[in-house]
Amino acid sequence: MTSGKGHAHHGLKLDTAVRADARRRLLSIRGHVEGILKMLEEDGTYCVDVLKQIKAVQGALGRVGEIVLRSHLADHVVNSAARGDEARVVDELMELLKYR
Amino acid sequence: MTSGKGHAHHGLKLDTAVRADARRRLLSIRGHVEGILKMLEEDGTYCVDVLKQIKAVQGALGRVGEIVLRSHLADHVVNSAARGDEARVVDELMELLKYR
Amino acid sequence: MTSGKGHAHHGLKLDTAVRADARRRLLSIRGHVEGILKMLEEDGTYCVDVLKQIKAVQGALGRVGEIVLRSHLADHVVNSAARGDEARVVDELMELLKYR
Amino acid sequence: MTSGKGHAHHGLKLDTAVRADARRRLLSIRGHVEGILKMLEEDGTYCVDVLKQIKAVQGALGRVGEIVLRSHLADHVVNSAARGDEARVVDELMELLKYR
Repeated sequence: MTSGKGHAHHGLKLDTAVRADARRRLLSIRGHVEGILKMLEEDGTYCVDVLKQIKAVQGALGRVGEIVLRSHLADHVVNSAARGDEARVVDELMELLKYR
Repeated sequence: MTSGKGHAHHGLKLDTAVRADARRRLLSIRGHVEGILKMLEEDGTYCVDVLKQIKAVQGALGRVGEIVLRSHLADHVVNSAARGDEARVVDELMELLKYR
Repeated sequence: MTSGKGHAHHGLKLDTAVRADARRRLLSIRGHVEGILKMLEEDGTYCVDVLKQIKAVQGALGRVGEIVLRSHLADHVVNSAARGDEARVVDELMELLKYR
Repeated sequence: MTSGKGHAHHGLKLDTAVRADARRRLLSIRGHVEGILKMLEEDGTYCVDVLKQIKAVQGALGRVGEIVLRSHLADHVVNSAARGDEARVVDELMELLKYR
C-alpha cells in the first residue's frame, strides 16, 4: 500500500516504546468511545452526560497527541537541519499545530 | 446513585434523532480510532501521520459535540428559567465549555 | 446599519457589574499586550518568551470570555424561550462556540 | 534586569523581520482591545457582541503566535541537536503547546 498512512519514503519512524504507549492509550480511548455508544443506545440519556464523555475522550486524545508530538520533536525535528529536510518538517508541524 | 451516565433524575433527555445521528458519527469515530490502532501496529509508522489522524478524530468528536450541544441548548437551556433549574443548567454548561 | 457593536435592537444588555469586571480585566490585558510590544522592540528577544506571553494573554482573554458567557447564559439564554427569540439565541451561541 | 523576558543567556533571538511583523500585528490587537474597552463603556452593550470581539482578538493573537512559532521552529529548533540544547528546546515547546 502506498497511502499516506504507511511506511513513508523518508524512513522516519515513530519510536517503538512511544508507539506501544500510544497503542495502549488508543485502546482505552476506543473503549471510552464504545461506552458513549452504549449511552447513546439508551432512551433516557442526558445531553450533558454525553458532552462530558466526549470532552473526556478529547482530553485523552490530546494526551496521546502530546506524547507522539514530543517524540517527533525529539527524534526528528531537532536534527532535521542536519538531515536537510527541515523545510518539510516545519511545514508539517505548522499544519498540525494551527487551530489546535 | 446509579451512575452519572444513565437516566438522570431530572428527566431531561437527548433528542431521539440527534441521539441516532451522534451514534452514527461515533461509530465512524470508533472506526477511525481502529484505523489509528492498525497504523500503530506497523513498525514504519511516521509520527506525523499518526498526529494527522488524531487531529482528524478530534475534529470529528468536536462536530458530534456541537450537534449534541446545539440540541441541549434548544431543548433544555432556553426554557430552563421556566422550568426552574437554570442555575444547574448554567453551571453544567460553563463546566463543559471552559478550556474547550 | 449603525454597527454590530452598539445598542442592539433587541434591548438585551450585558449586566452592569459584569461589564465593569470585564472592563477591568481588559485594561489589564491591554497592559499585557503593551508589555509584549515592549519585548518586541528589543533586538535580543527570544521567541519562546514572546510565545509564553501570547499564551498568557490568550488565557486572560478566555477568562473574560467565560465571565461574559456565563452572564449571557444566565441573563438572556435560559429565559429566551419565554421571550420568544430562542432560535436566534441558539444560533448566536453556536456560532461563538464552534472552534473555540 | 535578568527576568525571563529579556535577553536570554543562550543568545537565541527572534528574527528581526518576524519581530517587526509581530509588532505590527500586536499594535492592531491593542487597538482591537481598546475597541472592546469602548464597547464596555456603553450601557447598552450586548454580551454576544463582546464575545464576538473577544473571539476575533483571540484569533489574531493565535496568528501572531503561529508566525513566531514557525520562526522559532525554523531558526532554533531544527538545528538544536547540532547546537546541543535540544532537551531544553523540546521541553519549552511542549510546555507552550499543551492545552493550546
